[in-house]
Amino acid sequence: MIVALSGGIGGAKLALGLSHLLPPEELLIVANTGDDFEHLGLAISPDIDTLTYALAGLDNQELGWGRRDETWSFMETLAGIGGETWFRLGDRDLALHVERTRRLRAGESLSTVTTDIARRLGARPRILPMSDDPVRTRIRSDDGWIDFQHWFVRDQTRPPVHAIEFAGAAEARPQPGLLAALRARPRAVVICPSNPFISIEPILAVPGLRAAIAGCEAPVIAVSPIIAGQAVKGPTARMFGQAGIAPSAAAAAARYAGLLTHYVMEPGDDATGIAAQVIHAPTLMRSLEDKVALARAVLAAA
Amino acid sequence: MIVALSGGIGGAKLALGLSHLLPPEELLIVANTGDDFEHLGLAISPDIDTLTYALAGLDNQELGWGRRDETWSFMETLAGIGGETWFRLGDRDLALHVERTRRLRAGESLSTVTTDIARRLGARPRILPMSDDPVRTRIRSDDGWIDFQHWFVRDQTRPPVHAIEFAGAAEARPQPGLLAALRARPRAVVICPSNPFISIEPILAVPGLRAAIAGCEAPVIAVSPIIAGQAVKGPTARMFGQAGIAPSAAAAAARYAGLLTHYVMEPGDDATGIAAQVIHAPTLMRSLEDKVALARAVLAAA
Repeated sequence: MIVALSGGIGGAKLALGLSHLLPPEELLIVANTGDDFEHLGLAISPDIDTLTYALAGLDNQELGWGRRDETWSFMETLAGIGGETWFRLGDRDLALHVERTRRLRAGESLSTVTTDIARRLGARPRILPMSDDPVRTRIRSDDGWIDFQHWFVRDQTRPPVHAIEFAGAAEARPQPGLLAALRARPRAVVICPSNPFISIEPILAVPGLRAAIAGCEAPVIAVSPIIAGQAVKGPTARMFGQAGIAPSAAAAAARYAGLLTHYVMEPGDDATGIAAQVIHAPTLMRSLEDKVALARAVLAAA
Repeated sequence: MIVALSGGIGGAKLALGLSHLLPPEELLIVANTGDDFEHLGLAISPDIDTLTYALAGLDNQELGWGRRDETWSFMETLAGIGGETWFRLGDRDLALHVERTRRLRAGESLSTVTTDIARRLGARPRILPMSDDPVRTRIRSDDGWIDFQHWFVRDQTRPPVHAIEFAGAAEARPQPGLLAALRARPRAVVICPSNPFISIEPILAVPGLRAAIAGCEAPVIAVSPIIAGQAVKGPTARMFGQAGIAPSAAAAAARYAGLLTHYVMEPGDDATGIAAQVIHAPTLMRSLEDKVALARAVLAAA
């Protein structure tokens, strides 16, 4: 079993690559739920859905987010009646949020709903939330604490980040299937090239998960989210800067200090000071071939 | 002021006709909320929305229900992930349910939300729910009590109706703006050609409303929902049969015994025994001209 920890877009690319090389029963993808939120009364799980869409071949490749063949009638109408439109929900995407909200309110767990929806949409590997309990990433900026999606989407990551907290993490229990997989001697734990601060660290903040990973006796292989000091997408590099750290592959590796056995990073990037076995491999994933090739490099380390 | 009591499709036709003859501030349309229900976690108000769409010129004339320019991506996707699809919610229609649900949960009244959405969509006369408190029509059939929309939409009105109740009606308060309009000497109260059992009687079941109508000293003018023993649409005629009453214009008038001063019915239908001044006028409304002509006949009586 390969256990892969992932945020949204970047992580989903590697997860898709891994899914092309592994039988579905040998891949467990653990989704960050720190950026889940309730919006318009709906339970929205952006990273779970991004992973589901990518693994089901339903991701919207033109937009780079959301699902393919999307329509926008709901959002257009909502705008016309004065609703909030800063978080764009497509008509097809909305079905997942409405159904998830209904099932959670009926008492089902997030992991049951996630697994079922992913299966019905055609995603073959198992996708599990890090926890069935709510964990909510919050950002402290100039005007105090704000909810993650307000910072990330509404404010387009513009407010400077002074601190990050994962509200609820201290009381959250690791998803039981994930814990069982880590205890059953996985072949490797893979940390996808997601933003460490807001995609991977919320997962590691769930009590017991970091220790279960450290203690599982499997290689722990991270892929750098930084190439030549830059993130492929999103605020990762800038967040290093705001934390007073020069963004680099090595700086990203340092976020996982004590966990890593292997680190996959871009050829040419400086590996000085990385406390893990370094594998240089192309980490920019544009095509499916790129994703599979990077997944192959990761599995070679495993 | 004309106060018009209405259910969905049939009532909305006359309401539209009235809206073409009256300044918007002189027409108040009172919507039945007995067929409101919670579905997929959303607060759905079918008659309010039917009236809103009709008066805003947004009704779907091909389907005969719902709104125009509708798309169905949400429903298609919901079907694919195992959700309930017997109540068809279009993508544009859904925006009203999501926003209404959000605002009701935030503590706003149904009438505030209704008025605001209707205004934003371009409906000019005021539309008010009969009450801001929940009233839920239920049908007793062979297997016991079922929720109205289960009977009406899911079961397509097939289960025989042994009894009808308006749950919550005894505790519901009349919408204050409606009560004020009735107390301010309206020019007339119009009972639209809606199903008496399930569209008008829930309104009259709200404590105080029947008395306010009876006591308002204005003409009370109903339009027959029955033409030549048949309903234009829906289960009205069949429901008379199941109540042991032969369906006729006169039988429909008898449902409003003690309230009516005038009754508008199809030329040729038998007026025997109707305890109100009878006006014979064409009541089948296919075109806008039909709707306006019928509205004119109603206003002439007023």
